[in-house]
Amino acid sequence: MITISILGSGKVAHHLILEFLEHDDIKLQQVYSRNPNKVKNLVSDNQIISDISELKPADIFIIAVSDDAIEEVSSSIPLKNAFIVHTSGTKPMDSIMNTTRKGVFYMLQTFSIDKEVDFSQIPYCIEANNPTDFLLLEKLALAFSEKVYKISSVQRQSIHLAAVFVNNFTNHLFKLGEDICKENMVPFDILKPLILETANKVQTLSPKEAQTGPAARNDQGTIDRHLEALNDPIKKEIYQLITNSIQNN
Amino acid sequence: MITISILGSGKVAHHLILEFLEHDDIKLQQVYSRNPNKVKNLVSDNQIISDISELKPADIFIIAVSDDAIEEVSSSIPLKNAFIVHTSGTKPMDSIMNTTRKGVFYMLQTFSIDKEVDFSQIPYCIEANNPTDFLLLEKLALAFSEKVYKISSVQRQSIHLAAVFVNNFTNHLFKLGEDICKENMVPFDILKPLILETANKVQTLSPKEAQTGPAARNDQGTIDRHLEALNDPIKKEIYQLITNSIQNN
Repeated sequence: MITISILGSGKVAHHLILEFLEHDDIKLQQVYSRNPNKVKNLVSDNQIISDISELKPADIFIIAVSDDAIEEVSSSIPLKNAFIVHTSGTKPMDSIMNTTRKGVFYMLQTFSIDKEVDFSQIPYCIEANNPTDFLLLEKLALAFSEKVYKISSVQRQSIHLAAVFVNNFTNHLFKLGEDICKENMVPFDILKPLILETANKVQTLSPKEAQTGPAARNDQGTIDRHLEALNDPIKKEIYQLITNSIQNN
Repeated sequence: MITISILGSGKVAHHLILEFLEHDDIKLQQVYSRNPNKVKNLVSDNQIISDISELKPADIFIIAVSDDAIEEVSSSIPLKNAFIVHTSGTKPMDSIMNTTRKGVFYMLQTFSIDKEVDFSQIPYCIEANNPTDFLLLEKLALAFSEKVYKISSVQRQSIHLAAVFVNNFTNHLFKLGEDICKENMVPFDILKPLILETANKVQTLSPKEAQTGPAARNDQGTIDRHLEALNDPIKKEIYQLITNSIQNN
């Protein structure tokens, strides 16, 4: 049995709480939130605290707050020698204050409150500054998934940057595709199977092997017609820049 | 029973042939290719012709060749009043020559020779210049899938443009993410579940609802660190431009 307390009530905290409640070998001890209303439909009232001084001992304290609040929240934990981890993709492990037992439990996935997450499909990037704590964190991650990676703070920052490209930026391209559909009275639904297949393809092919389209085949006629059809200057600039980047690869 | 002949032997022709062979109510009559070797492992020798004058009558002739060859190939079909369709996302229906019975059978999906395609998940964008032919084309599409859309040539061009954004450009962002992983000795595998979930999310949420990341939450500190970490000027420019575009939405 691993006892865990969560500090935070945002999207990551929300899904962690839901997942921990599913596991008999994990005991969710307390949830600390400045805004207890956000979690009171998830856990019983006596598990929720809004005063951090009420924290009881636990095996792992998981800080799932915005990056900029990690130092402050970890500094406020009133327990000596607690094992404290954060869930940030960008902050170094050393942004955790007030303890020598530090770690990172970064789940490389995109979370929305309204969308269920399959924890068995998440890669866990873990790090700890002592071997015993590392093993404990690894045990926790392995309770969910086999995709557990020992990742340094420097590597994690690069993964987070790569994730911005493949997730945030990709999602924005979906938005631009949706705009173009709307302007032409075409349902966005028509693009959804293509979007899924695009993601499916690189599960087995490399992105280079999977690349198709006018840029990849140097079809300048189609590229010119597309640029002409785009009225929005930002869409036009994105089209030109990514086309160049594909052609330089 | 619908009898069909295919003109072409590229990726789209390849997958169409494989799919037609699965359907008892579709008879694949002939395949015309200048390079018969490309299809001889798919169909029997007596179905393959490399001389277009050997074409026999069929209900539908599907031209699945490169966009620029559609006019020439349709002009060479020696049969009077044949129903000829092309499969291009960009070319107007009127690029078909030498017949008054024209149509388009555009499958909005990305095809690779080595990757099986689920035809039941493809949206079919169909168009024909007379109602009887339209019904025949619709019957063919409905044999594969329920996702059948009546789409004009102008709409189809906009769909193709949107598809470049959500498929070709997205795939290139996967390539850039892979580059960043490689530079930091992180396996690209670690990004694959995120890539799948990014595509899954917009099956039920709108891209706007699904948008997360430093640009969406105006986290300038992370944006600055990411820009600093990017050495490649094209990646830096893409990062800056898409970040701006997200923030303008």
